[in-house]
Amino acid sequence: MQTTYRLLIDCPDQVGLVAAVSQFLAQHNAAIVEASHHTDIATQRFFMRHEICADSVNLDHQTFSHAFDDMAKQYQMRWKLSDSQHKPRIALLASKESHCLVDLLHRWHTGELHCDIACVIANHPQMRQFADWYEVPFYHIDFQQQGKVSAFAEIEQLIDSHKVDLTVLARFMQILPNHLCEKLAGHIINIHHSFLPSFAGARPYQQAYDRGVKLIGATCHYVTADLDEGPIIEQSVKRISHSDNPADMVRKGKDCEVTALAHGVRYHLQDRVIIHRNKTVVFA
Amino acid sequence: MQTTYRLLIDCPDQVGLVAAVSQFLAQHNAAIVEASHHTDIATQRFFMRHEICADSVNLDHQTFSHAFDDMAKQYQMRWKLSDSQHKPRIALLASKESHCLVDLLHRWHTGELHCDIACVIANHPQMRQFADWYEVPFYHIDFQQQGKVSAFAEIEQLIDSHKVDLTVLARFMQILPNHLCEKLAGHIINIHHSFLPSFAGARPYQQAYDRGVKLIGATCHYVTADLDEGPIIEQSVKRISHSDNPADMVRKGKDCEVTALAHGVRYHLQDRVIIHRNKTVVFA
Amino acid sequence: MQTTYRLLIDCPDQVGLVAAVSQFLAQHNAAIVEASHHTDIATQRFFMRHEICADSVNLDHQTFSHAFDDMAKQYQMRWKLSDSQHKPRIALLASKESHCLVDLLHRWHTGELHCDIACVIANHPQMRQFADWYEVPFYHIDFQQQGKVSAFAEIEQLIDSHKVDLTVLARFMQILPNHLCEKLAGHIINIHHSFLPSFAGARPYQQAYDRGVKLIGATCHYVTADLDEGPIIEQSVKRISHSDNPADMVRKGKDCEVTALAHGVRYHLQDRVIIHRNKTVVFA
Amino acid sequence: MQTTYRLLIDCPDQVGLVAAVSQFLAQHNAAIVEASHHTDIATQRFFMRHEICADSVNLDHQTFSHAFDDMAKQYQMRWKLSDSQHKPRIALLASKESHCLVDLLHRWHTGELHCDIACVIANHPQMRQFADWYEVPFYHIDFQQQGKVSAFAEIEQLIDSHKVDLTVLARFMQILPNHLCEKLAGHIINIHHSFLPSFAGARPYQQAYDRGVKLIGATCHYVTADLDEGPIIEQSVKRISHSDNPADMVRKGKDCEVTALAHGVRYHLQDRVIIHRNKTVVFA
Repeated sequence: MQTTYRLLIDCPDQVGLVAAVSQFLAQHNAAIVEASHHTDIATQRFFMRHEICADSVNLDHQTFSHAFDDMAKQYQMRWKLSDSQHKPRIALLASKESHCLVDLLHRWHTGELHCDIACVIANHPQMRQFADWYEVPFYHIDFQQQGKVSAFAEIEQLIDSHKVDLTVLARFMQILPNHLCEKLAGHIINIHHSFLPSFAGARPYQQAYDRGVKLIGATCHYVTADLDEGPIIEQSVKRISHSDNPADMVRKGKDCEVTALAHGVRYHLQDRVIIHRNKTVVFA
Repeated sequence: MQTTYRLLIDCPDQVGLVAAVSQFLAQHNAAIVEASHHTDIATQRFFMRHEICADSVNLDHQTFSHAFDDMAKQYQMRWKLSDSQHKPRIALLASKESHCLVDLLHRWHTGELHCDIACVIANHPQMRQFADWYEVPFYHIDFQQQGKVSAFAEIEQLIDSHKVDLTVLARFMQILPNHLCEKLAGHIINIHHSFLPSFAGARPYQQAYDRGVKLIGATCHYVTADLDEGPIIEQSVKRISHSDNPADMVRKGKDCEVTALAHGVRYHLQDRVIIHRNKTVVFA
Repeated sequence: MQTTYRLLIDCPDQVGLVAAVSQFLAQHNAAIVEASHHTDIATQRFFMRHEICADSVNLDHQTFSHAFDDMAKQYQMRWKLSDSQHKPRIALLASKESHCLVDLLHRWHTGELHCDIACVIANHPQMRQFADWYEVPFYHIDFQQQGKVSAFAEIEQLIDSHKVDLTVLARFMQILPNHLCEKLAGHIINIHHSFLPSFAGARPYQQAYDRGVKLIGATCHYVTADLDEGPIIEQSVKRISHSDNPADMVRKGKDCEVTALAHGVRYHLQDRVIIHRNKTVVFA
Repeated sequence: MQTTYRLLIDCPDQVGLVAAVSQFLAQHNAAIVEASHHTDIATQRFFMRHEICADSVNLDHQTFSHAFDDMAKQYQMRWKLSDSQHKPRIALLASKESHCLVDLLHRWHTGELHCDIACVIANHPQMRQFADWYEVPFYHIDFQQQGKVSAFAEIEQLIDSHKVDLTVLARFMQILPNHLCEKLAGHIINIHHSFLPSFAGARPYQQAYDRGVKLIGATCHYVTADLDEGPIIEQSVKRISHSDNPADMVRKGKDCEVTALAHGVRYHLQDRVIIHRNKTVVFA
């Protein structure tokens, strides 16, 4: 796969933005592989993503980056220039349920997810053997024995020491303390097992069963201090009927969870997501 | 199309129910075209639907019906025996938006929905011409001029005088008074423009836009006194993205509304729905 | 709705294309509402669509157009600049089945499809009354009486005299002569009632039933001389089961046909489709 | 999970079939957990599946089975009575691609698929380590070294010696010899990476790319001597666009393959599928 640079920008909207950026790119001979824009009319904000062929650019990454910064300031751009060769480091947080963990590890192992799995952290020991097989460090944090405060302190320390870029809650059933949500803001993704905002909170499949809905779903979102209220990246649904009991719904819902989470993580890793207030722009 | 009888049953569960009913049917030479059962384990209730070839039965509808009643009592059955030739009479209640109304009238006109359209009642005059074209009585009720109480009294009187079997709120944007909800219970269907329970109440597309969901939907449900809380018959969803503004969502959502409502009405007309507490069994 | 210009371009790929175009746009103060690009790596071809706010441009449409032409030549661009105020003229060709016709007329009537319906042409008379209601000229061409050659000559003459921009075969069940396909190339859309390339040709639902597929579908495509082989714009599918007979499949398939055709026509009318060889780029 | 008996029947249609069977069941006190019927009108054949609570039956499996046989003969029934406790033995045949294999092993390991994995047989060695982890026997058959005839002889011998009930081709890219297809008929399932009948044969994603379809899919079917022509159990599709190259389609298609195969295998294991001519009745 060819190396690309990904240029992610958002800034106040004005005429000439695309021209300024694309002129800059052309000036440095950058061949555009993919380009996407979006203007949020209501908030007058502009969003842009370019994927450019690294080999075509006549500057190295750092010089290119410095050069761009001058223009960025002029337009009050928030921006990021990443190299597709770079592998973000992921921490996977799990509980007993294995489907999301197994799926993400497989997609990583086969190269579909371009990242390093820094570690797996779980509040149950069952997944150790599985992580071992993939030769990924596994940490069992015993919430019951050490208590919530101490447990999260240890998790935070692990995330720090492993230089984690992205934390993924792969059906990790513990509510994170606010300070950790804030510290990791924009770099922590959760999968919730309902189509939010329906059935936030505990036991969403039971809630769905009780309400008698005809579709169940899953929601991949960034974690914020407001439980299940963060910016949504991806959602997936599946048809059910009266003949599905809560156990059937759990089973069927897993396929939604797995695909919504895999998509969400992939979009994030490929720098396809820009968070804007409590929503996301996803250049899928 | 051959004439069929539809036998709809629900009762406390016990061994031998299917045997008793199918033996009764076989005894009267009834050829089964379609049969569906469901047991709700949690509430120990049994649900059954048979569609049988009317010609094959060696009794007329009424005698057959009387004969069945004896068995029904023995098993504490709630039941209904309907003739597929019978056309239920529908009142369509609408407002300004025409998509659901146009769709239902077309499906009725082409024979897809087996019913009579008794009348169209609207709180805006725009649809008159359309109803005229289909030669369906049209009543314009002016809510602003006559006030809500008087308006609903007139609607109730129209539903009564037209001997309406099923009232369909085809994007009728007025909240019905409780007594009317109760009077028509089980015989009044609404389409809500969100995947309930998300975004109940007013302006669901704006709510969906504000929350930043990646799927929008529509919900067809029986109307109860609790707004948007009645038993759900059918739901439909559609993928959206950050580039869809509320107007796009309204446009895209219409296709969900149209299909969810059409399916829901069809299931009801074909006696495929049994309401149980606040949920439905739909033998689709 | 604000007036926009839509600039559609395709040309051999090279570095600087986006810069050249966006610089041109910025130079004339054009505010970009929406922009999409695509590079076909295999054929080294570049595709681009801009939607720009007409009011923001400091030139009138014609002068702007002339100015652009100079650059276009330099890059060997095929291009088109259209005005969103312009209403393309559509001829709807139909047969007995009304669902696609009714749907398109309704979407046109409610403003969802921005176009003029120049005429409805049908080889059966049934739809006349419906066209009349919408005050659209209706022509019944009797294929049996006048023969195929004469019938198509009349159709061609009607398309010409009505200055038709886009011909839509809304379940028109006659095979067009090659010369007409070629004459209307890129300006004639068909809906085929299967997910092509499966079940091309006659009676696709029966073919689908015989094969025992678990999904049926519909395909909206540009018409070419090779029957059902033209560039695909949109496809839609629906789940079926063993309990669906061919008549059920016809009924269920209609919803696929209606939505696939409506989407396809909409994309075309909004200049979102570029035909490239036997495929389409659709900036949806 | 409670133990159930599954009674699968198909026979020529006639009045009284349901009565006879359900009377038989009631007579032996069998509590019906789930029941499904289907009549194929065209071929006048009747299909039925009952799932009954084993504990409720007043006979053991064998006596019950003998008793039923008398009635079965009378109605020319093909039938099968299976015990939900029984675990069918599966052989998984794979090649280099791991996604289907990994998914099925995970679903088996977590108890979602109720079966024993008798062995994994592959024509590439890569998956050995993975099978080892699950403690499943792994056999590498080197087609290049030993030749096709010898390789398939060894596979056949492995299937025999492992007493395999169901052979699953989990992206096994070799064409089976006719005699093996016939020997395993009804007990061998394949996943084909297109929505059949589109794109049968080799490189379906490339074919799909070349044709420019807007949906890709996967088909789970029973294997017959006619390549990709066997009875279809399940199909799954996913939307794509012009921006997806064949590699994207391969990646996106994998999710379709995984879910279609998992569903198909599950239906088979739960005795939900009856093959009738070249189609299936699936009581999903």
